[in-house]
Amino acid sequence: MPNILIILGSKSDTPVASKTTALLREFGVSYEVKVASAHRTPDLVKDIVTNSNADVFIAIAGLSAALPGAVAAMTTRPVIGVPVSGKVNMDSILSIVQMPSGVPVAGVGLDRGDNAALLAIQILSLKDAQLAEKLILHRKNMAEKIIRESEELDEDV
Amino acid sequence: MPNILIILGSKSDTPVASKTTALLREFGVSYEVKVASAHRTPDLVKDIVTNSNADVFIAIAGLSAALPGAVAAMTTRPVIGVPVSGKVNMDSILSIVQMPSGVPVAGVGLDRGDNAALLAIQILSLKDAQLAEKLILHRKNMAEKIIRESEELDEDV
Amino acid sequence: MPNILIILGSKSDTPVASKTTALLREFGVSYEVKVASAHRTPDLVKDIVTNSNADVFIAIAGLSAALPGAVAAMTTRPVIGVPVSGKVNMDSILSIVQMPSGVPVAGVGLDRGDNAALLAIQILSLKDAQLAEKLILHRKNMAEKIIRESEELDEDV
Amino acid sequence: MPNILIILGSKSDTPVASKTTALLREFGVSYEVKVASAHRTPDLVKDIVTNSNADVFIAIAGLSAALPGAVAAMTTRPVIGVPVSGKVNMDSILSIVQMPSGVPVAGVGLDRGDNAALLAIQILSLKDAQLAEKLILHRKNMAEKIIRESEELDEDV
Amino acid sequence: MPNILIILGSKSDTPVASKTTALLREFGVSYEVKVASAHRTPDLVKDIVTNSNADVFIAIAGLSAALPGAVAAMTTRPVIGVPVSGKVNMDSILSIVQMPSGVPVAGVGLDRGDNAALLAIQILSLKDAQLAEKLILHRKNMAEKIIRESEELDEDV
Amino acid sequence: MPNILIILGSKSDTPVASKTTALLREFGVSYEVKVASAHRTPDLVKDIVTNSNADVFIAIAGLSAALPGAVAAMTTRPVIGVPVSGKVNMDSILSIVQMPSGVPVAGVGLDRGDNAALLAIQILSLKDAQLAEKLILHRKNMAEKIIRESEELDEDV
Amino acid sequence: MPNILIILGSKSDTPVASKTTALLREFGVSYEVKVASAHRTPDLVKDIVTNSNADVFIAIAGLSAALPGAVAAMTTRPVIGVPVSGKVNMDSILSIVQMPSGVPVAGVGLDRGDNAALLAIQILSLKDAQLAEKLILHRKNMAEKIIRESEELDEDV
Amino acid sequence: MPNILIILGSKSDTPVASKTTALLREFGVSYEVKVASAHRTPDLVKDIVTNSNADVFIAIAGLSAALPGAVAAMTTRPVIGVPVSGKVNMDSILSIVQMPSGVPVAGVGLDRGDNAALLAIQILSLKDAQLAEKLILHRKNMAEKIIRESEELDEDV
Repeated sequence: MPNILIILGSKSDTPVASKTTALLREFGVSYEVKVASAHRTPDLVKDIVTNSNADVFIAIAGLSAALPGAVAAMTTRPVIGVPVSGKVNMDSILSIVQMPSGVPVAGVGLDRGDNAALLAIQILSLKDAQLAEKLILHRKNMAEKIIRESEELDEDV
Repeated sequence: MPNILIILGSKSDTPVASKTTALLREFGVSYEVKVASAHRTPDLVKDIVTNSNADVFIAIAGLSAALPGAVAAMTTRPVIGVPVSGKVNMDSILSIVQMPSGVPVAGVGLDRGDNAALLAIQILSLKDAQLAEKLILHRKNMAEKIIRESEELDEDV
Repeated sequence: MPNILIILGSKSDTPVASKTTALLREFGVSYEVKVASAHRTPDLVKDIVTNSNADVFIAIAGLSAALPGAVAAMTTRPVIGVPVSGKVNMDSILSIVQMPSGVPVAGVGLDRGDNAALLAIQILSLKDAQLAEKLILHRKNMAEKIIRESEELDEDV
Repeated sequence: MPNILIILGSKSDTPVASKTTALLREFGVSYEVKVASAHRTPDLVKDIVTNSNADVFIAIAGLSAALPGAVAAMTTRPVIGVPVSGKVNMDSILSIVQMPSGVPVAGVGLDRGDNAALLAIQILSLKDAQLAEKLILHRKNMAEKIIRESEELDEDV
Repeated sequence: MPNILIILGSKSDTPVASKTTALLREFGVSYEVKVASAHRTPDLVKDIVTNSNADVFIAIAGLSAALPGAVAAMTTRPVIGVPVSGKVNMDSILSIVQMPSGVPVAGVGLDRGDNAALLAIQILSLKDAQLAEKLILHRKNMAEKIIRESEELDEDV
Repeated sequence: MPNILIILGSKSDTPVASKTTALLREFGVSYEVKVASAHRTPDLVKDIVTNSNADVFIAIAGLSAALPGAVAAMTTRPVIGVPVSGKVNMDSILSIVQMPSGVPVAGVGLDRGDNAALLAIQILSLKDAQLAEKLILHRKNMAEKIIRESEELDEDV
Repeated sequence: MPNILIILGSKSDTPVASKTTALLREFGVSYEVKVASAHRTPDLVKDIVTNSNADVFIAIAGLSAALPGAVAAMTTRPVIGVPVSGKVNMDSILSIVQMPSGVPVAGVGLDRGDNAALLAIQILSLKDAQLAEKLILHRKNMAEKIIRESEELDEDV
Repeated sequence: MPNILIILGSKSDTPVASKTTALLREFGVSYEVKVASAHRTPDLVKDIVTNSNADVFIAIAGLSAALPGAVAAMTTRPVIGVPVSGKVNMDSILSIVQMPSGVPVAGVGLDRGDNAALLAIQILSLKDAQLAEKLILHRKNMAEKIIRESEELDEDV
């Protein structure tokens, strides 16, 4: 039974989802990926969400990105929304962030499938001490990489 | 059996809906008004839409205004979306207008419950010659009012 | 006598119009396509609209996209407006959506010529039971395609 | 025969138009004021513009402010467009400024009926030396007022 | 030891925080509230975050709302960011949502202190079955209130 | 003595200016082109403007496009401002349009050097009957081209 | 000879300037305040700037806020620009921030006359050790006030 | 001991930083370049800033560009913030400009690493007469280049 359920509003959102799955695999967190559109397959969205035991849902969508909100409407589990970039960008950002009172979506940045994964792992780590340690290590490695870049850069620019 | 089903995302959208119902009454078009939120009562939205024989749906919502799209996802009847004003405004406009391919919403202007009514009546008038005549008369009266205003104004400004 | 009259503000809007005509042909709905600019050929717009018996008008325009509103000003038939993308994008979206009280335009998404066609077909289907059935089938096929994508995707991402 | 024809998209635009007429009176430039909506009374707009011998047109409108462009479409005289403020503001600014190639509108600032008058007077002054002198004097008086304000202010802030 | 640590960027953000605390009290979730500015008291932010055992952090800030990101930079626990409204609004929304890769913030809507509380409770409910039940009940009550509103409304509008 | 003085804020604005000069040559209107930056060569801007007898000034600039306003500040002749596109676009549009009371700039669309030329010619045509006729002919030719496009298009789309 | 020269684009910008002068007085930094408009009194701006020995200039303006850039064009001393709020807000922010290469303006936040003062003092403190100490003390006091607010708040919210 | 400390939020900001260092080298101003992220390495940012004796800090960052504000929070020296372009652009501009009262950042234009250098040099020149002279010469050379461009251009466009 996977911990994370990732739903894409469209198959074209796959590159953003790949950032999510790469990190989940790195952390050893199980996941499942589905394509289901809030507008084109609302019943499929409902089926997927109500039949899932996932701890956290990640919904990825562009344009009038209703999918994260539609998922959030059908579960009281945490739902992370990832706006996908396009010609307008403020459409997906605002559609995901500006949820009404009572049904939260956790919005991350434009095309930030990676941060959706990390946020989901942070949530899971509250009941999984091993994940919590991996997160600290991951943050440490990231910091060390930047420190190395800082040292190398000074001579280059 | 009412011709038009008006759905409000929140009771606070009533002032916008009142512009819609005033015009529908003026044209003698039957309607029903419901409050149902895409995010807070998704099943109610589905019940209302799938049990309705309305010719046209008018969905009124603010913020991340998912309601018009959620209604459009559950019917192949025409759905008119009315964005409601708030602190951001571009949120409801873009959420309603930027629908993905395959599921259209007919977006009207911010708080334009009146134009939602007129658009619905225009649609109904394609199979109701009497409504079509009333629309022409309504447009004519509107024009005459502006012509009178033009005549009165010149001396005032 | 075609059911749908499509007007392009500029010949350069043809790629967006092609999405419209492809769907209308698929549904067997008759249409006519004209180029006429609200700003460069206002009389042509008037001639085309007032001499047309089309049930629904689709007006496609970019920039200060006055064409849908100009068409709506000359008919009480439903008018669908399609904003065309460019360097600003909010210009055509807002010009089409923010119509004043009394003269509605049904705004669809940026470059969404396809949804303009579907909305027009939804409107026509209110008096054409065969079209109504085709719409339901089209929606069903679209949903099935997404379901297949969901099944195939899981192994790929 | 008035030199300037001022057209308001709606009677509610009168406060902006009053800034225009106050300056035209101050400069002794004749004008006429009409209410005519590009969307609600397109034929009236055409009648007014094609029957006018005005040297310069000033069109004042909010929302999807099609009026200045509609006037410009019917004359080759200079047309000044004044966007009127509302809930969105970028709608009227962009509708007026983003005209397509071939039909210019001279856009001034939001609610800047005063600058529309001054721009019209600048245009008329090219063939009226007396107006040209008055403009120089008006600019000088404006500058002197600011210089006085600068002198008075230093002690106050 | 409180479960939730709420940090306000400024005392003036208290009205938004009150929506958060009201819901946390209703759900019986312990919390602590601090004022600490990422820009004016960065060390205080660090002290508060690194000395806290809170499961979830809620950071509330307006303008260039750096606080949620600053908190997220110092912990691998989930951080929820609440943008506070002001003269621009897009400043706090984008500052909170557009986090770089590696350090997620869970952005909720403008002034949505209530949804920050619910999202935090959803996260805690993954390891607290009683909270999970309360969430389902809360959602049910919210839905029933809307259903009542729908029934009452029909006669009113 | 040229009728029109065109000032570019930067040599990189030449492609936009070329649209202006092409039309001025077509109409036989004399012009001069200068590069002068409001920010980098303010004295040059002043020299150019105060030593010019041009009837109309056209100022072309991007980013914080101060040039049109700087020119307008130094003359009471009509000044047309052309915003140049870049990474933000709203910067040059708003810098040019949002002039304060007392110093108008006639703003045209983004990169619309062509419309700046036509607006300048419209202004000059008020005292040059031959230009006025040429404008009517130019508009007629433009309309005929669109009518031809409309006739050709119907078979193509 | 005052260290700081504050220039207001309009007398109506006084409330923003008062935040600047209050802080300068608190720090014992001498200043002078002038009203001078880049658009209405360009020569006055030049006179003021070229005759001043101020170390730092602070220019405060709204709308198409050309003043900071105009000041920066006439001096190689540091120029701080303060955008003033109005109906659009992005106009003054972008006009001040988006300066072209070669002529920098130091933009601060909307209506942030206070931060303009602090930035000017930070600049002066590079050659005035006493000011540098006062700045550290001011920052410390500000932090202590927030710490007190944090302690008081916990019981209130 | 370098006069200027340049901090990049990410190694990918190097092209913008190169514009800064090119100018600093041209003016003979010493500098140091570091990569340090406000979100990924907050302690490194603190170490770098608190251990530096730089007169002026230049912080370059995109997205939710917290780095300039984070640097400003840890020093009372002047901090210049450079927003880096991306998919949204208003994110980094507003994150940098809209700082709260008490902690100023001097915001320059999008990707304007060059102007950050010039602003820093302007600040340093207040206590370095030689730099002040170089700035005047640099401005003069820039003006002469534009004058030459103006002379060459007239024949070309």
